[in-house]
Amino acid sequence: MKAELNDIADEVMRKYRGLPKDYAGHIPVGKGASGSDTSKIDKFAEDAVLAFMDEQGIGLNVLSEEIGFVDRGGKKTLVLDPIDGTVNCTRGIPFFSISMAVCSKTMADCDHALVRNLFSGDTYYARRGGGAELNGHRIAVSKFNRDDSLFLMFDGRDVAPESEKVKAMASRVRTMGCASLEMCLVAQGSAQAHYMNCTKRSRMIRIVDIAASCLILREAGGEVVDLTGNKLDMELSLDDRKNFLAYGDPKIKELVL
Amino acid sequence: MKAELNDIADEVMRKYRGLPKDYAGHIPVGKGASGSDTSKIDKFAEDAVLAFMDEQGIGLNVLSEEIGFVDRGGKKTLVLDPIDGTVNCTRGIPFFSISMAVCSKTMADCDHALVRNLFSGDTYYARRGGGAELNGHRIAVSKFNRDDSLFLMFDGRDVAPESEKVKAMASRVRTMGCASLEMCLVAQGSAQAHYMNCTKRSRMIRIVDIAASCLILREAGGEVVDLTGNKLDMELSLDDRKNFLAYGDPKIKELVL
Repeated sequence: MKAELNDIADEVMRKYRGLPKDYAGHIPVGKGASGSDTSKIDKFAEDAVLAFMDEQGIGLNVLSEEIGFVDRGGKKTLVLDPIDGTVNCTRGIPFFSISMAVCSKTMADCDHALVRNLFSGDTYYARRGGGAELNGHRIAVSKFNRDDSLFLMFDGRDVAPESEKVKAMASRVRTMGCASLEMCLVAQGSAQAHYMNCTKRSRMIRIVDIAASCLILREAGGEVVDLTGNKLDMELSLDDRKNFLAYGDPKIKELVL
Repeated sequence: MKAELNDIADEVMRKYRGLPKDYAGHIPVGKGASGSDTSKIDKFAEDAVLAFMDEQGIGLNVLSEEIGFVDRGGKKTLVLDPIDGTVNCTRGIPFFSISMAVCSKTMADCDHALVRNLFSGDTYYARRGGGAELNGHRIAVSKFNRDDSLFLMFDGRDVAPESEKVKAMASRVRTMGCASLEMCLVAQGSAQAHYMNCTKRSRMIRIVDIAASCLILREAGGEVVDLTGNKLDMELSLDDRKNFLAYGDPKIKELVL
């Protein structure tokens, strides 16, 4: 399955690189079907994945951002965000990805996951029980040290006030705008936590955004919980929305929740 | 002067790429002279610049982060941050740069500026009165539209409470941890503002961080002001520290200050 996921990522990266861009890497997207500027590039990448899966005979169902659930007669489902960090992608900010997880009934039973940074090509992969890797090298989370720590924070208009106290726990914070890659930064020990506490349901995380990086982080020794402290799980549906805390060191869960 | 600045950036990028890194791009830095984990990589890059300038006979004085002011008998001074976004660089977060500005007496008289993204190689350059470019293509700021806007915010432990109201003006926010590249994102129209309002003097911006990107942004049609609304200027000294607002559209200045 690793090879198939890699092939899909290669295909999307090839298509992305072939797109016309202005000098600053902006993609002139126009309005997509959903009326947003950004959905057109997602649709473009999603179409590329579906066509490639047909062509290669990859027998998985698909749950994806634009198209929803596609029954392709498979036993398992590819949970897909064809472009995670779409705003970054269309604005020329070099931090966005494709995120793919192979699940059966819920997010928790995911057994293969791949996240590719579509700008740099860096590839994160995990198999359930088999560890997590970046470009073929085993990765692992890092310990939390208050004076030398970095937290990745959901932030902006719809952030919950509780975020302020979490932010104050870390010596540095970042808001990078691509949840899957931010989770992978925790998995590789670059950051110690990723926290989303959003007041607006429609901006909370969905399974397509987080399923892959969730397995990668768990296989790297970390954990992801909802804000009541339970291990995060999500239904195979675009309607399920959650806030979450992802961390490398369990001390962070005690401090934050 | 453009060629010389480009040559220096090439040299630092070559040296950076030659450094041993772990799987995740972390650089094992150890403690530097200033006691921080990060100063060692800055010193390494600074040494590379100074040696290269001697070798090539580039007759500028230097004002740089680690070494301070070096009188090399020049009429002008290279205001240098050898690695801007050091925390990103050492932690394997792919967003850091070298920042170089050629100044005479203060930041405002800067006449050449170059910022290189050391991860991707993207190069921003401006000559006073000659416009700003990214990889040789002219760049320009973008208009502010409240519903489709992105602000780059200084954030974390030492952020001033006023930042909250500024954050709320934009539909999206990012905190990327590299001021020079964040300024360049405003210059290229990817973001509409970069705002730093920090309560701790030692974390406010210095001339070495901002001189180059300040010229680049101004030549791209934007402006940088201090938080009283005056055009930002800084002395040729590491002791001068400021907060600031950088923007593409003058409407933002009216709204924020």
